Amino acid sequence: MIDFQPADPDFETRVRDSFDRQQVMRLLGARLGRVAPGLVEIELPFRPELTQQHHFFHAGITATIGDSAGGYAAFSLFPADSSVLTAEYKINLIAPADGDRLIATGRVIKPGRTLTVCTFEVSAEKDGRAKPCAIGQQTVMRLDGRPDTPVA
Amino acid sequence: MIDFQPADPDFETRVRDSFDRQQVMRLLGARLGRVAPGLVEIELPFRPELTQQHHFFHAGITATIGDSAGGYAAFSLFPADSSVLTAEYKINLIAPADGDRLIATGRVIKPGRTLTVCTFEVSAEKDGRAKPCAIGQQTVMRLDGRPDTPVA
Amino acid sequence: MIDFQPADPDFETRVRDSFDRQQVMRLLGARLGRVAPGLVEIELPFRPELTQQHHFFHAGITATIGDSAGGYAAFSLFPADSSVLTAEYKINLIAPADGDRLIATGRVIKPGRTLTVCTFEVSAEKDGRAKPCAIGQQTVMRLDGRPDTPVA
Amino acid sequence: MIDFQPADPDFETRVRDSFDRQQVMRLLGARLGRVAPGLVEIELPFRPELTQQHHFFHAGITATIGDSAGGYAAFSLFPADSSVLTAEYKINLIAPADGDRLIATGRVIKPGRTLTVCTFEVSAEKDGRAKPCAIGQQTVMRLDGRPDTPVA
Repeated sequence: MIDFQPADPDFETRVRDSFDRQQVMRLLGARLGRVAPGLVEIELPFRPELTQQHHFFHAGITATIGDSAGGYAAFSLFPADSSVLTAEYKINLIAPADGDRLIATGRVIKPGRTLTVCTFEVSAEKDGRAKPCAIGQQTVMRLDGRPDTPVA
Repeated sequence: MIDFQPADPDFETRVRDSFDRQQVMRLLGARLGRVAPGLVEIELPFRPELTQQHHFFHAGITATIGDSAGGYAAFSLFPADSSVLTAEYKINLIAPADGDRLIATGRVIKPGRTLTVCTFEVSAEKDGRAKPCAIGQQTVMRLDGRPDTPVA
Repeated sequence: MIDFQPADPDFETRVRDSFDRQQVMRLLGARLGRVAPGLVEIELPFRPELTQQHHFFHAGITATIGDSAGGYAAFSLFPADSSVLTAEYKINLIAPADGDRLIATGRVIKPGRTLTVCTFEVSAEKDGRAKPCAIGQQTVMRLDGRPDTPVA
Repeated sequence: MIDFQPADPDFETRVRDSFDRQQVMRLLGARLGRVAPGLVEIELPFRPELTQQHHFFHAGITATIGDSAGGYAAFSLFPADSSVLTAEYKINLIAPADGDRLIATGRVIKPGRTLTVCTFEVSAEKDGRAKPCAIGQQTVMRLDGRPDTPVA
């Protein structure tokens, strides 16, 4: 993995604050894990409310935390006064998301002034063993001069 | 649009029953709209709990109902004893999901014995006007001999 | 389809000139068809050199003209002094590309200052009947102040 | 990377024979590099005929060898009497394909009885240094009982 230099030394606080403002993460019960330059982890404990008809995590939930992990991985490298927007992503669901917990890891592959390309992987942890259940590839956009904070 | 012939005359009941078993749809507050052969609509009223940091619907939520609409569009054409699995999808978020309600429409483009290819579109309705906020393209898998019902 | 207003009245000449500079289109034997604001067609007659091991058009060739049709559809709406770059695309190969001719149609779905989102469809024509063999979804980037002409 | 066990001990011969039957690879001038269980490399020397309007490798060419590298990586794990079909892929073009040579590496991420998920990376080599220019994610289908050989 490439060693990225964040533009903003306070990147971790900025990522954690933004994550805390996403109400949907609270609804799902997702938590931020590791936040490093160009790498972010999101964890999501199992709850019956997050399941599809076979009682696995719903694919949409898997995708939601995968996309967010990638978006925040990109955001960790952005300057302080910018915000982040997912332009697009693609996800392959490679195994049932069957576990006590999902862990999504987003990684920057190619940072850019306008577009940043990321990949993400989501694993399902069951009885202490993690097994990949989804992989994704994503394009994230940087919006300069628009800090990621609520409008007063 | 192509005129599809469903393999199961009770396709609508089968789609509605399966949707009702998805607990995550209840958590989000999503409802099934139109169910036709090869076309399914899902509606989702706005709730603050579904938002990202700018108070629009979170991209993951948009994707969740888009993916589900496509999956159920495929499922509507399947035989009675089969179930459905999203193999992969790709989504472009083309405008902020800013509205009182999201409407996702999934459409079968190419049905197949094993793989069905669908597209989906999600629109955000605001003050009675709908504006597309996401488009997607999806591969859905049919699992034969595995009815979409809970294991006893 | 939306009625797009091209920023450059000479868009058709600009698209055709750029296409003519793509040596790979000559190698394949591809030709520009219709060029309208936000819609471009590319045609490719069958040649054994374009085939995979089963003597259908190779998926890479199908994708090449699909991607180009989408890129030029976007380019048709750009200002005169800009150039075009595919950021990413996704393609589903929905039937064998079996025919005397391929026809790719690219369409702009959402134009934007930086990013334009397109879809494309490729059909294989056999004995006068066209059958879709691929669909795609694409993100195209506009580079301003960099005309699409060779460096002197 | 996972250590894959090929179903067919003669996988390398089978991959090389199939590649040789793809006429389009000859037209482009592509050559097979490394062939290992679940990993295949394809190399493509620069030729002006393979370029877009800025004299870099055309994105379609980059995608063609990326897709083929992934497809053959999957095919290397298949039984002897099966053939391979790309169902879909997604590619991000992360840098101009500017170089004397392209090298595409396809890798199996998740093998399956019906569907195999792969990733691929394409690098452009210039003055002896390789730089990634594209990454992709792909779904490949296995067709059993249909050997990858020409119909007599």
